Amino acid sequence: MTTQHIVSAFDRDLVGAQAKVMKMAGLVEEAMAQVAIALETNDLAKAEAVRKNDKAIDALDEDIKHECARILATRSPTASDLRTVLTVMSISSNLERCGDYAKNIAKRTTVLTNAKPINGVAAALRGMQNAVSSMIKDVLEAYIQRDVAKAEDVRDRDNQVDEMYNTLFRSLLTHMMEDSQNITACMHLHFIAKNIERMGDHTTSIAEQVIYLVTGEMPDDDRPKSDLTAFTTPEDLGEA
Amino acid sequence: MTTQHIVSAFDRDLVGAQAKVMKMAGLVEEAMAQVAIALETNDLAKAEAVRKNDKAIDALDEDIKHECARILATRSPTASDLRTVLTVMSISSNLERCGDYAKNIAKRTTVLTNAKPINGVAAALRGMQNAVSSMIKDVLEAYIQRDVAKAEDVRDRDNQVDEMYNTLFRSLLTHMMEDSQNITACMHLHFIAKNIERMGDHTTSIAEQVIYLVTGEMPDDDRPKSDLTAFTTPEDLGEA
Repeated sequence: MTTQHIVSAFDRDLVGAQAKVMKMAGLVEEAMAQVAIALETNDLAKAEAVRKNDKAIDALDEDIKHECARILATRSPTASDLRTVLTVMSISSNLERCGDYAKNIAKRTTVLTNAKPINGVAAALRGMQNAVSSMIKDVLEAYIQRDVAKAEDVRDRDNQVDEMYNTLFRSLLTHMMEDSQNITACMHLHFIAKNIERMGDHTTSIAEQVIYLVTGEMPDDDRPKSDLTAFTTPEDLGEA
Repeated sequence: MTTQHIVSAFDRDLVGAQAKVMKMAGLVEEAMAQVAIALETNDLAKAEAVRKNDKAIDALDEDIKHECARILATRSPTASDLRTVLTVMSISSNLERCGDYAKNIAKRTTVLTNAKPINGVAAALRGMQNAVSSMIKDVLEAYIQRDVAKAEDVRDRDNQVDEMYNTLFRSLLTHMMEDSQNITACMHLHFIAKNIERMGDHTTSIAEQVIYLVTGEMPDDDRPKSDLTAFTTPEDLGEA
């Protein structure tokens, strides 16, 4: 009877922390959607709102960490309960970083409104952002449903984001080489693309945590990495 | 007597995990030093070694996480002992990310050996890398000695790294505008600079965790951020 009581108290505590994680994920998705609109429409007020709203995401992260520390201290969970608490903390950290990236993108909006628009880049960024947003949505479903197949699917989809990034990277290089007046804008746009690609990596980290939570094993590190820009040589681009 | 026994068992467990954190930090510093040499001397074998050695850093991170989960499960620490275990896990995560950044830099070495060298950049990168390496060394001392002043000093020094990054960013833009043949190399060099700047951010995170561990409060978020490149406009650079 006592055990029963302790178990359900643990579950109740956890539900509170999980609800905050879901709220946080919603705020991150919203920030990503808003910052994309701000970039496309040169809406500085919207960009400023995204920057300000990041404080709410950070506050939720701190709340969740405190809540989890309290659960660890008062419930002393072991085995899979302990793994669950550690997973919630880790999801929270990863979402907090995604929020930071959205904020960093918002900061660039000011510069880009003054720069010459670069053809096709807004659509490419929007494509990357949509892909990562839906990964975030799905990975949280995978967590709630303890669905390893769904988590693995999210992990695989990160390759598509990496490929979109590779394509955009090459296109930015071409724009820069064609006209040096594009260079500053392209540097900022590259920064934005890289930030979205990193959000994809953080979402992949969450997927791996979910797999670990359910199976007790971390997936292998040898996921085919598709950010190939490290190997883009001047020759590839006909530059040298 | 029993309490005494439990306390010292906890401490003994923790000493093991901490020793691994110190070993990990040593490997990260070594990776940073080696990758800097590889870049400056076009030494592809050294760069390849840095990439391979990252597996050892990742393995230590997993070890530390398992060790800490075991401590949480078997010792059920509370209050400052619990905070200490969570801090060790967080330091490990941050060091693991620093290792990833060094690995990513190593990947770029291959491209850069084929590109025209850009004046002054190697020295600037080396300056950033030295600054971050010494921050990592000091922040771990701050952790071991529970030295808040030292942790705050590390946190402040991140501004210097950000300033070095700002200066380098502007210099790379100038090189790209002067000669389009520099563009690809400069994009990769910018990526490297940004990675070192991010290592500084992770080290700052560790410093903040140490401050939290000792004082029970996270420092304010309003540390003056000095990465101002988000606000570099074409006008600033005489481009538009």
